[in-house]
Amino acid sequence: MTSPLRHISAGSATAATDVWIGPGLLDTAASRLFSSSGRFLLVTSAGPLAAVERVRRALAGRLLVDLEIDDREESKTLGTVSEIANAALSAGVRRDDALVAVGGGVVSDVAGFAAAILLRGIPWNAVPTTTGSMADAAIGGKTGVDHREGKNLLGAFHPPRVVLADPAALDGLPEREFRAGLVEALKAAWIADSGLSGRVEETLSSVLARDEGPLLDLLAGAAAVKADIVSEDPRESDRRRLLNFGHTLGHAFEASGGYRHLRHGEAVAWGIRAALDLSVRRTGLSAEAGGRVADLLSRLGPFPAPETAPARLEPFLSRDKKATARGIAGVLLEDIGRARVEEAIPLQEWLDAAARISLP
Amino acid sequence: MTSPLRHISAGSATAATDVWIGPGLLDTAASRLFSSSGRFLLVTSAGPLAAVERVRRALAGRLLVDLEIDDREESKTLGTVSEIANAALSAGVRRDDALVAVGGGVVSDVAGFAAAILLRGIPWNAVPTTTGSMADAAIGGKTGVDHREGKNLLGAFHPPRVVLADPAALDGLPEREFRAGLVEALKAAWIADSGLSGRVEETLSSVLARDEGPLLDLLAGAAAVKADIVSEDPRESDRRRLLNFGHTLGHAFEASGGYRHLRHGEAVAWGIRAALDLSVRRTGLSAEAGGRVADLLSRLGPFPAPETAPARLEPFLSRDKKATARGIAGVLLEDIGRARVEEAIPLQEWLDAAARISLP
Repeated sequence: MTSPLRHISAGSATAATDVWIGPGLLDTAASRLFSSSGRFLLVTSAGPLAAVERVRRALAGRLLVDLEIDDREESKTLGTVSEIANAALSAGVRRDDALVAVGGGVVSDVAGFAAAILLRGIPWNAVPTTTGSMADAAIGGKTGVDHREGKNLLGAFHPPRVVLADPAALDGLPEREFRAGLVEALKAAWIADSGLSGRVEETLSSVLARDEGPLLDLLAGAAAVKADIVSEDPRESDRRRLLNFGHTLGHAFEASGGYRHLRHGEAVAWGIRAALDLSVRRTGLSAEAGGRVADLLSRLGPFPAPETAPARLEPFLSRDKKATARGIAGVLLEDIGRARVEEAIPLQEWLDAAARISLP
Repeated sequence: MTSPLRHISAGSATAATDVWIGPGLLDTAASRLFSSSGRFLLVTSAGPLAAVERVRRALAGRLLVDLEIDDREESKTLGTVSEIANAALSAGVRRDDALVAVGGGVVSDVAGFAAAILLRGIPWNAVPTTTGSMADAAIGGKTGVDHREGKNLLGAFHPPRVVLADPAALDGLPEREFRAGLVEALKAAWIADSGLSGRVEETLSSVLARDEGPLLDLLAGAAAVKADIVSEDPRESDRRRLLNFGHTLGHAFEASGGYRHLRHGEAVAWGIRAALDLSVRRTGLSAEAGGRVADLLSRLGPFPAPETAPARLEPFLSRDKKATARGIAGVLLEDIGRARVEEAIPLQEWLDAAARISLP
C-alpha cells in the first residue's frame, strides 16, 4: 500500500508553515526544504540516526554548516543555542540562508530558537524524527530553551517554513519514545477531532506495530488539529491553550520526578487521566467517554507511575504559569473532540485528582 | 519657555510604540510606562546616572528586579542578556510584567533583547539617556547583541511599548557622546525632512548649548522620521534601508578602528561625508546641498579622523551584509530630505570616496 503525501498549511500569510507528511520525504528533502539562497545550516541529533544521514546526503553540496548537538533535555540551554550561532556566524551565514533541524523536540526547539535570533531571524525547516515532534513539537512556532528556574523559559515564536514528517525517520526510535510521543498525537484528537479518536480505537494495535497507513493517519490528523489551532491563535492568548490538555498535572509529574523518571508524553498521559476525572465532575463528561479515553491511554502504556504525594506536587502546581490566587487554569473535556479551559480550579481539586489516579 | 509634551506613534496595531518627548517625563514615569501587572524589571546603566535614580524613585515599590549592567559595547553580549534573564526568572517574572531599560543604545539593545526572549516575549519600555538613543536606537524594535564575528549579529525585532525621552536624562552626558548622537538625528532630517534640516542650520549653536526648545525640536523631528519609516517597513525589507545613510562606510570606519577609535555617530558622520561625494556623482545631488550637509557635520565636530587606507577598509566592506558580487548597496541623497538606495556601488567607488574625505 502506498500512502499519498499529505500537505497541511499552518500559520498566517506572514508566518506560514508547509507541513508535508508521508513516505519518501527524507531522500527528496532538497526539493521541499526552504532556502532562498539554496544554502542550508544542518543541525542534527548527535549519533548514527538514519534520518540524519539521508537528509545530509540529500543536501550534499549545499551545506554551509553541518553541526551535531546533544539532544538530551540537559542540553536544551542558551549555551547550545550559542554553539549553533557560533557555527553559523563563523561560516558566514546570510539572511537568505536557512537552517534545517533533524531530530526530536529538543533539536527543533533549540535549533529553531537559534534561527529566531541569528541576524534577527533566518528561516528554518524541521525534519522531526520522533512521534511527538511530528504530531506536536515541530508545528506551531514555539522555540526555546530551559533555564535552571524551569522549562522553556527563554525562547521565541518562530515557526518553521517547512516540516517534513517521513515515517522512515522513526526507524530506530525506541519503543518507549515511540509510544510516549503518541500521547501528544491522541491528545490532539481528544480536544478537537472525535473522528480521529474513534478511528484510532480501531487501529491502535496497527499503529503500535508501526503500520504506515494507520500511523500516518494518526500523525497527519494530529498535525492538522495543531495546525488549525495555532493558525487561529499563534501566541496562545485563547484557543491554543486547549493544547495544554493534560499538561497542568503533567508538568508537575515531570518536574517532581526531576525530568528523569517520566518522558514528557508519559507525564501528559497521567495528566490526562487526572483531567478526565476532573472533567466528569466539572463539565459533565460522560463516564463512558472518559472510559474510552482512559482505555486508549492504557493500551499505549503501561507507563511508570508518577509521584502523586500532595506535598511533592504542590510546589510545582503553585508556580504554574497559569496559577492565580483563585486556582490554576486547566483544560477539561466536555466530550471526546471537545475541550474547554476552566480558569481557576482550586489547588486541592488538582491534588485530589492526582491522588485518585494512583488507585488501582 | 515651557516645552509641550510631544507624542509620536510608531509601529503597527499589533506592535505599537508610544514615544513621548519632553520635560518632566522621568519623575512621572510610573504613569506612562507600560506594565499590565504594574510590576517592572528595571535594567540600567551602572554608575550614578541622575536619570536612573529618578526613574527608580518614580517606580518605587513596583520593582521586581533592579539590575545595573555595564553599558560599554564590550558588554553587549549574550552573556549580559543571560544575566538579565537570570535576574528576571529568579524573581519570578510573569508574562504580564514589563521591563524598563534606562540608558543609552547598549542598554536598550541588550535589555530589549532580553525582553524579547523572556517567556518568549514580555513587554518593555525604553528611557533613553543619550541623544543617539532618543533620536534613533530606542525606536524601531531592533534589539540585539554583538558576536565575535561582528556587531548586532544576534537579536530580535521587539519594539518597546513606550519610549520616554526627557531632556533631563541627558544631564551629565559627555559632550562627545552628546554631539555624536546628534549625527543620527540629523541623518533622519537629511533622508526625509528638509524642513528640519533647514531649522537646525539656524539653531545648531543653541542645540549644542543644549537649549531645550531647539534640542527637543531636533530630537522629536528625528524620532518622527524614524517612527514613520519603521511603521511602514518594520523588518527593513524596503524603505527602512534609508536609515542606513552613512552606515556602509560608517561601519567599516568603526570596525577598522576596533570600535574604540570612533563613536558610532562619529563614524556615521564620516560615512555621510563620503556618501555625499558619491551622491553628487551618482544622483545629481547639487554641490550646494551637499555643502550644506557637510557644513552642519563640520559644526557638530571636529571628529577624530577615520582610517581610510583601502587595504584596511576593504575587508569590512566586502563582508557587509549588503554586499553582492556586483557591489555594495548604499544610501545616497538626491536632495536634502530625499534619499534612495543604490543597489550595487562597486567596491572601488566606496574606497575612492573614503580616500577623498581624508583630503583637507
